[in-house]
Amino acid sequence: MSKLRGRFEGPTGDDMRRFSSSLEVDLRMLDEEIDGSLAHALMLGKTGLISTTEAKQLREGLETIREELRSESWRPGDEHEDIHLAIEARLVDKLGNVGKKLHTARSRNDQVATDVRLWLKRRVARIDAALRQLIVTLLRRVEEDGRTLMPGYTHLQRGQPILLGHQILAHAWSLTRDRDRFRDALDRLDRSPLGACAMAGTPHPIDRECTAETLGFAGPVENAMDAVAARDHEQEVAAHCAICMTQLSRMAEELVLWSSTEFGLVRIDERYATGSSIMPQKRNPDAAELVRGKAATVSGNLQTLLSLVRSLPLAYNRDLQESRGALFDAVDTTVSSIEIMTGMWDSLHVHRERFETELRGDASLATELADHLASRGVPFREAHEIVGRLVLWCERQGVALDEIPADKAAEFHPELAGEPDALSALLDPRAAAERRSSLGGTAWSEIRRQARLLQTAMESDPAAP
Amino acid sequence: MSKLRGRFEGPTGDDMRRFSSSLEVDLRMLDEEIDGSLAHALMLGKTGLISTTEAKQLREGLETIREELRSESWRPGDEHEDIHLAIEARLVDKLGNVGKKLHTARSRNDQVATDVRLWLKRRVARIDAALRQLIVTLLRRVEEDGRTLMPGYTHLQRGQPILLGHQILAHAWSLTRDRDRFRDALDRLDRSPLGACAMAGTPHPIDRECTAETLGFAGPVENAMDAVAARDHEQEVAAHCAICMTQLSRMAEELVLWSSTEFGLVRIDERYATGSSIMPQKRNPDAAELVRGKAATVSGNLQTLLSLVRSLPLAYNRDLQESRGALFDAVDTTVSSIEIMTGMWDSLHVHRERFETELRGDASLATELADHLASRGVPFREAHEIVGRLVLWCERQGVALDEIPADKAAEFHPELAGEPDALSALLDPRAAAERRSSLGGTAWSEIRRQARLLQTAMESDPAAP
Amino acid sequence: MSKLRGRFEGPTGDDMRRFSSSLEVDLRMLDEEIDGSLAHALMLGKTGLISTTEAKQLREGLETIREELRSESWRPGDEHEDIHLAIEARLVDKLGNVGKKLHTARSRNDQVATDVRLWLKRRVARIDAALRQLIVTLLRRVEEDGRTLMPGYTHLQRGQPILLGHQILAHAWSLTRDRDRFRDALDRLDRSPLGACAMAGTPHPIDRECTAETLGFAGPVENAMDAVAARDHEQEVAAHCAICMTQLSRMAEELVLWSSTEFGLVRIDERYATGSSIMPQKRNPDAAELVRGKAATVSGNLQTLLSLVRSLPLAYNRDLQESRGALFDAVDTTVSSIEIMTGMWDSLHVHRERFETELRGDASLATELADHLASRGVPFREAHEIVGRLVLWCERQGVALDEIPADKAAEFHPELAGEPDALSALLDPRAAAERRSSLGGTAWSEIRRQARLLQTAMESDPAAP
Amino acid sequence: MSKLRGRFEGPTGDDMRRFSSSLEVDLRMLDEEIDGSLAHALMLGKTGLISTTEAKQLREGLETIREELRSESWRPGDEHEDIHLAIEARLVDKLGNVGKKLHTARSRNDQVATDVRLWLKRRVARIDAALRQLIVTLLRRVEEDGRTLMPGYTHLQRGQPILLGHQILAHAWSLTRDRDRFRDALDRLDRSPLGACAMAGTPHPIDRECTAETLGFAGPVENAMDAVAARDHEQEVAAHCAICMTQLSRMAEELVLWSSTEFGLVRIDERYATGSSIMPQKRNPDAAELVRGKAATVSGNLQTLLSLVRSLPLAYNRDLQESRGALFDAVDTTVSSIEIMTGMWDSLHVHRERFETELRGDASLATELADHLASRGVPFREAHEIVGRLVLWCERQGVALDEIPADKAAEFHPELAGEPDALSALLDPRAAAERRSSLGGTAWSEIRRQARLLQTAMESDPAAP
Repeated sequence: MSKLRGRFEGPTGDDMRRFSSSLEVDLRMLDEEIDGSLAHALMLGKTGLISTTEAKQLREGLETIREELRSESWRPGDEHEDIHLAIEARLVDKLGNVGKKLHTARSRNDQVATDVRLWLKRRVARIDAALRQLIVTLLRRVEEDGRTLMPGYTHLQRGQPILLGHQILAHAWSLTRDRDRFRDALDRLDRSPLGACAMAGTPHPIDRECTAETLGFAGPVENAMDAVAARDHEQEVAAHCAICMTQLSRMAEELVLWSSTEFGLVRIDERYATGSSIMPQKRNPDAAELVRGKAATVSGNLQTLLSLVRSLPLAYNRDLQESRGALFDAVDTTVSSIEIMTGMWDSLHVHRERFETELRGDASLATELADHLASRGVPFREAHEIVGRLVLWCERQGVALDEIPADKAAEFHPELAGEPDALSALLDPRAAAERRSSLGGTAWSEIRRQARLLQTAMESDPAAP
Repeated sequence: MSKLRGRFEGPTGDDMRRFSSSLEVDLRMLDEEIDGSLAHALMLGKTGLISTTEAKQLREGLETIREELRSESWRPGDEHEDIHLAIEARLVDKLGNVGKKLHTARSRNDQVATDVRLWLKRRVARIDAALRQLIVTLLRRVEEDGRTLMPGYTHLQRGQPILLGHQILAHAWSLTRDRDRFRDALDRLDRSPLGACAMAGTPHPIDRECTAETLGFAGPVENAMDAVAARDHEQEVAAHCAICMTQLSRMAEELVLWSSTEFGLVRIDERYATGSSIMPQKRNPDAAELVRGKAATVSGNLQTLLSLVRSLPLAYNRDLQESRGALFDAVDTTVSSIEIMTGMWDSLHVHRERFETELRGDASLATELADHLASRGVPFREAHEIVGRLVLWCERQGVALDEIPADKAAEFHPELAGEPDALSALLDPRAAAERRSSLGGTAWSEIRRQARLLQTAMESDPAAP
Repeated sequence: MSKLRGRFEGPTGDDMRRFSSSLEVDLRMLDEEIDGSLAHALMLGKTGLISTTEAKQLREGLETIREELRSESWRPGDEHEDIHLAIEARLVDKLGNVGKKLHTARSRNDQVATDVRLWLKRRVARIDAALRQLIVTLLRRVEEDGRTLMPGYTHLQRGQPILLGHQILAHAWSLTRDRDRFRDALDRLDRSPLGACAMAGTPHPIDRECTAETLGFAGPVENAMDAVAARDHEQEVAAHCAICMTQLSRMAEELVLWSSTEFGLVRIDERYATGSSIMPQKRNPDAAELVRGKAATVSGNLQTLLSLVRSLPLAYNRDLQESRGALFDAVDTTVSSIEIMTGMWDSLHVHRERFETELRGDASLATELADHLASRGVPFREAHEIVGRLVLWCERQGVALDEIPADKAAEFHPELAGEPDALSALLDPRAAAERRSSLGGTAWSEIRRQARLLQTAMESDPAAP
Repeated sequence: MSKLRGRFEGPTGDDMRRFSSSLEVDLRMLDEEIDGSLAHALMLGKTGLISTTEAKQLREGLETIREELRSESWRPGDEHEDIHLAIEARLVDKLGNVGKKLHTARSRNDQVATDVRLWLKRRVARIDAALRQLIVTLLRRVEEDGRTLMPGYTHLQRGQPILLGHQILAHAWSLTRDRDRFRDALDRLDRSPLGACAMAGTPHPIDRECTAETLGFAGPVENAMDAVAARDHEQEVAAHCAICMTQLSRMAEELVLWSSTEFGLVRIDERYATGSSIMPQKRNPDAAELVRGKAATVSGNLQTLLSLVRSLPLAYNRDLQESRGALFDAVDTTVSSIEIMTGMWDSLHVHRERFETELRGDASLATELADHLASRGVPFREAHEIVGRLVLWCERQGVALDEIPADKAAEFHPELAGEPDALSALLDPRAAAERRSSLGGTAWSEIRRQARLLQTAMESDPAAP
């Protein structure tokens, strides 16, 4: 039994063993655990703290254990306090006394801190790659379906006609900021805690630069207590996950809305939909709903991570064990949600004609009239009021905006009479969208400009390694 | 393959299957799932919707499957969309067409809602029993160690001398309120959704009272849409878990503090402590720290449950699938945390003499002097100021409160001079504690009175069934 | 300057004064503060701790100060540490030494704890009354518009036809549970902390039953440390607020959806809508959106309250000051959100005919066919599959369900051929809704039954006093 | 009355006005509001959308209003829907029709989004400056008190002797990462939304680069819908606040612990402490407790911001109004908490001798023995066990580590016998700390090295402008 109970006389109770186990979560870091120990053994040998032969033995033993773990011919069990001690015990089984030297100048505190950072480096890079793929997919959909006419909504009320590409790009830009955030977080966490030991460093002449370099870190954490006690990098990654998931949930909400019979703008591919156990006709946008729901889970995870650390004195406290479950869950959920969202968009069916006729004469063209008046010198606030009254009149009469008689229009303002064709052109929804060609506007030229910018950025900026 | 893809042509993708699976969580409700189906089959037979023979066949088939599940000779796999469809498919394998009749007048929506309520009824009863056991254990420790003298703290500064039993009882009272809350929640959730179907009821002449009674519910949920869409009972149970865990975390914090070398009031039994991988002398209060940490996890779970449901229109949306993981985790964590806390208190070593001498002359007796002056007619606010100045003088001179010369004391106020013995009696810390015999005060008589009240309550009020 | 700095030599700095001030929040409890002091003074007189004359003077002084506060002729300012000391100082200004006696056998800890409980009792009663009013309003709308035909949604996809009254009642039932929860919480918090003093009680012969009764509490908190340290009642009320707001946010989401052009089921009265600064036609459902948004605020408040107390040792710690802002905000927001929701529903315009024709032949009638087959002996799961294929065929052919030729229908299953009228009757959406007359179903008879139940409950159960 | 109710007939009700008001929060952005309008007016003039004379009039009018606001000779009241319309109305009062032209090619959506970003830029820069000041203060305290000997804790149990400077630097390093995070967030939010209008841009030939430059932004937001709908920058800043506050709460927890009588390591200056209303001797570490408590508030704020935006479709929805209260509160609380923490550390009294003798022979020196054995070739895991048994023996005998007789020590391992002086040197706590001179260790040389690194960084990297 590998438990650190030297000064204890009895064993831990079963209740406590179950209560304190983090086995399930820790099993996810086995590769990082072995990598960390390999680097440590190498360093012990290089600095002469153990002999080179011993170092070689330790490394070979560790590689053997990695193989055993991968082939599932051995796995840590409940008789060990945790996977770290389990692997050490396995090493001692294989190598005898040499195995007992691995833990020289190391504590579980710096060991686990190193594992988590290595795990994060690898998984956050995968988030970055997945985000890139999602952006690339969105750009493709802009190319294919971006000219689809639709209402732009505010307050879920129709505001002004836009092109679908405009809205897709709004999400794409947001996702590029997510990538930036994750990369910034990666830079910050890219420091090795190994060698910090319990919290105070060690009297042994170790070489922390060596282990840091071996493990691919940019360098060691400068302060040993900071190395084992800091959790801000975990909170930061989880925060970025929660922010990213919030964005994905907005896309998901739109897909749910747009795939309703009432909106009818898109159809989610059946690979991402499910049926009902009672209603045979159902085609539910499950994948989108799950992304939306999982955003709540990830923000719960973040809350756990923040609340957990609040008011904990330095250095390590066992409470911190709870952080890994919440952190890993947040990261994994984010990866899979991005990937599912990519699949949904990749296979999405867009009903390009849905709003093409429906928007003719729609009240959401009222801004056209106000802007027209403003361009003829009517102060905008006044123009806004005039058109407001006109819209109310139309609503009451049950008349579409483009059906208002010229003489009636003139009553509201002479400039609204004009030639019939002029007014009609003004109220053409697609023309209205194209007219908004100011920087960032919904005109197709602006959409294309932005898409090219993003395309170039994605090409010149491959995913994090 | 049992998936409800009648109107779909292709299968769900692997990515979507993994993303949408709730298998791991649902496996925890297998017993409830079988119970619900048994009750439904019984009712279908009683109402003549299927024949009694068919009902009998279905029930036998379900019992067989329960046995298979218990003996692990069969378990639902990934080829099924979820455990509900897996069990139905298994039934069809066994019974043929009869198996296909089980889902008459039922939807997964009401089926799952029923499972979750059954599960909650059983587990919340276990929380109640565990809380009762913890209170009983605390009462035993009051009996054994309750007269231990110690400082009562506010702001973690010594305030007034108290007896340990006083503080233990503060927690015990709080835990009785937790029990009340869980029982109130149980009453509210004790309604059967079965028969609500998708959300609108069914044209079949079912008998929801019958299934409710069979399953031990107080009655059916009155409205079918409410039956499948409501999640307030889940949020309520999770909220009560979070509140209860917050209380436990306060107890845990105290155990961590008190078992530090500096406070030195208690020693956590080694069954609930662990050692260090590097520091041989360590005896860490891990169980207490984990309870404290898990309180953060549970409040994260609650946050997930609230955020998840916010702004979801009725009735069922797939987002809600995420709720089970968070809910079950909150409930399980609460059960095990209460049990661990019971074990810790049951085996706790109290150093009864720790503060016995240290509190003599301690500044935390200053209120005695102020109360003394007040009882001699000095307005309390004035008394408070006088004693404040006296304490400052003592601090500067490095003199304990009970070492202040009578003439010096008289300078602050004549009533503080008196006979030396009177002052000395006033400043005896145990006498000071005993003097606080107002209702709810720290005097031993009051502690005993409260303990008897609680004891009687625990005896007359056994745990929820 | 009324600060308790007897043993301190210098003043607090300006930065600290601003940082630690809770003035704005505390000003909301002035009435409760005065009430608490009145009861305390009365008790001091009754027990002889001060003379009856002094008690009378104190009470008159307090009433005068209450008048000053109400008429704003005086208000506590920043020169005082908090409102409690400010009022005491004001009393001393008025009464001299007698004023200094008010704080005998009292600490700010029990004083503030009493204020908060009094405040909660009053405000939670108002929540209860507001909830009752909302339910009554919903029942009126069921009476008026409850027979409006509409799709019942799951996953925001049309599921089965329902009547609007069915969905309104789902919310009404949920709100009755909210009322229950708040009342349970009221019962639990209805205990007086006054007389607990710092945490240990007092040597003075006070009468806590007397102050409890005077203040209208059911009795005193039994344990003095529990009295000042417990915050579970605050967390409970905030949790109930968060749960209630979650429910309101679901109603709000539906109002936002239903008032979109696409759904077109309701129109929010202009009193609860706003326009746009740029788009003259806009009629935004702002009140509903704000309720939805404020649900997020309240769940943030709850999170603060839980996180705040986690791992705080007993008894009082200054962190707890932060709780009042979050608690009061949660309670106030809940009151006003319920009231606004009542106003919105009271004035809501329902477009009763919106779905009347649109649902004819809609795919959401498919369950009718499956249930019909099941009632003719086809095992439900098989019926479900058959109809699934039929729906797919219709979708592909662009044919409504009720337009499928009899011979084509027969191909799917002979029982679907029947007489044309029979099938047509089966697919009449209103008939389909009425057919669901099982307990809790959407049939009008069931809606009326439930409405009567609720009506009776509201009449026999007036709002909390 | 300036409300955008052109198409509405009646006024908003009082209840709705109160419910929807964000006046109090918006008043905090008045400067930014004026700045944004000034830039917009300038641009309108430059592009010829209005005449240069009109632009000049508008700008002068706006400056006048700013003066009125500053001198409080006028302020927006409840008769206006919000401050934006109030200021526009004021402008129209002053300038007539010209005032009505200001809103040309602008919506409240882009206007408010611009205000918030400007506000954030200014306040986040202040956070950065405050963090820098705190780090500089900590470095000064390292210089002054950094050699104070104390136990390094894990699990709040004494682990190994350290120097206070080591622990202070752990916090300082963490705070430098907070600075980095805020600066990264600043870079990302440094884009101007102005000119995005409602969400789709405008047909008017505006110049968004011009307004961006005038306002000091790095450039315009590229997509108009993203410009008004994005809230990730708000979430990011709030997340960084929550992470920073978590770190501050850990420092605060340590100050509370260390200033307890039991730990007795520091004394918080009376400027940051308060007394008790009943206990005359109290000196409560209120400022530290409040920082700890406010960390909970800020993480509640973050939760609100995330939950609020979850599942909101683009573009603007009124829910988002709730974000400003939570965001501004988070930012302000963070600024003031950093400043208070700086004041506390600046004036903190350290009891340098507190642990000097107490740590002699303390069990926390056990690692010295294990490391000694390891350096003599005993495999570390074996050494750890040997010393564990020795510690247990000492504990049982009530013997300090440095009092163990040489022959007894030899029983555990011959290498532990050695010369008496050698063992004694090994067990000298200060020597033990100094021995840990590995990179990042607690040795004074390492502390000095790190302090110099940080000092240089602070000098070369002034606060954000």
